[in-house]
Amino acid sequence: MRIARFVVDSDPMYGVVDGNDVHVLAGDPFFQGIKTTGVTHQLDDVRLVAPIIPRSKVIGFGRTYREHAKELGNEVPNEPLMFLKPNTSVVGHGDPVTLPAFSEEVSFEGELAVVIGRICKDVPAEKAADVIFGYTVANDLTARDAQRKDPQWARAKGFDGACPLGPWIETQLTDPDDVGIVTRVNGEVRQDGSTNEMIWSVNDLVARASEAFTLLPGDVILTGTPAGVGLVAEGDNVEIEVEGIGTLRSVFRR
Amino acid sequence: MRIARFVVDSDPMYGVVDGNDVHVLAGDPFFQGIKTTGVTHQLDDVRLVAPIIPRSKVIGFGRTYREHAKELGNEVPNEPLMFLKPNTSVVGHGDPVTLPAFSEEVSFEGELAVVIGRICKDVPAEKAADVIFGYTVANDLTARDAQRKDPQWARAKGFDGACPLGPWIETQLTDPDDVGIVTRVNGEVRQDGSTNEMIWSVNDLVARASEAFTLLPGDVILTGTPAGVGLVAEGDNVEIEVEGIGTLRSVFRR
Repeated sequence: MRIARFVVDSDPMYGVVDGNDVHVLAGDPFFQGIKTTGVTHQLDDVRLVAPIIPRSKVIGFGRTYREHAKELGNEVPNEPLMFLKPNTSVVGHGDPVTLPAFSEEVSFEGELAVVIGRICKDVPAEKAADVIFGYTVANDLTARDAQRKDPQWARAKGFDGACPLGPWIETQLTDPDDVGIVTRVNGEVRQDGSTNEMIWSVNDLVARASEAFTLLPGDVILTGTPAGVGLVAEGDNVEIEVEGIGTLRSVFRR
Repeated sequence: MRIARFVVDSDPMYGVVDGNDVHVLAGDPFFQGIKTTGVTHQLDDVRLVAPIIPRSKVIGFGRTYREHAKELGNEVPNEPLMFLKPNTSVVGHGDPVTLPAFSEEVSFEGELAVVIGRICKDVPAEKAADVIFGYTVANDLTARDAQRKDPQWARAKGFDGACPLGPWIETQLTDPDDVGIVTRVNGEVRQDGSTNEMIWSVNDLVARASEAFTLLPGDVILTGTPAGVGLVAEGDNVEIEVEGIGTLRSVFRR
């Protein structure tokens, strides 16, 4: 099932996307379950917004793909590298991202994202599926110049707009450890990988995040990016397609 | 004025602390201003909780005191080091902190904390006072072993309980750049510094945080710790007193 968050007139609502239909839900599916109101809109008539603004945190993992670790000149690590992005960095599908004034080198990173459905701590990998609400597509935007300069990546990965998420949350993904990730910049393929190249499984990453922190419903875990990252420029149209979920589009401006 | 958040029976409320009186406020002073209900409790009869759980983020600054940078063997930096702690790390005055299973070396760091009152971005230092709701006391707990091991400090500084805040928010602090910070472990003085030893002013740090991110009402900025940090053990009672605000107490357990 595909759960979108969208605006028709004013306040955001949740809905189930079925082809071009969006069946409006009553309330917040993270806390009230899936209850349809009987109202349906056409997908073309609504404006999608970020499917979730975490009440707590976005947890990112880095260097989870061997080839990407190598392309940035890093060792393939024994442990996945974990970092935080604040909820003020989250934007939705189609939202413009203003490149931050402090950076001349913002890079795209196409990723599979996990959306947590339940409060949890110390979840073993084999139980991770129980705490996962669904999956979405993320662009883990990173200011490479700030990343080189700053010992901690708060600013490099946490600026406003640094975490496009969307277009919606897919609650059933047959095998999260075997989905294709393709990133296109202005229509040209730049990343073409699969989560089957990851060093750790998606469930392993959920387990590791939950060892570090209590996870809350709506928290998001970014699972890392395959090889092929590159810089974005003003005016670029970046599309990230994750197999079985959909395509997240972002446009960039100064 | 001292704004506390506390529990009498069930849901947390806000109140103004005046000596041993707590005058209950109607609603959330961050969004609804200071309106008293006419109900008053005695401070001894209420249980204080964290004066704010940020809806977005805790932004920490490190190496802002020359002597502390040196004691950890770091260069005195040209720029303050910025990091994030998630809101799941926040606990209140008197709350027990469970030392995380992944660390044998958790250190206290007594700090002055700024609580943001308004949504803002790119605030110049000379206007920072306009966006500050008030000040509280923080213990920027840090797992030194994880900090050494992990390239990013998400886990080292972000574990559950890693950010005790309290006992309340003081909205008027005569000179935030000249307040004493004393940390006592089991009654013994371990840190005895002043914000007048900081390399940057408090307003400078607010300005820098707001260059990196949009700040939301209730976001918290930790201004760094003076020299004298050390490890905490199970059973320790750590008290951090910031002049003009009050004393934040934390007890530790495994």
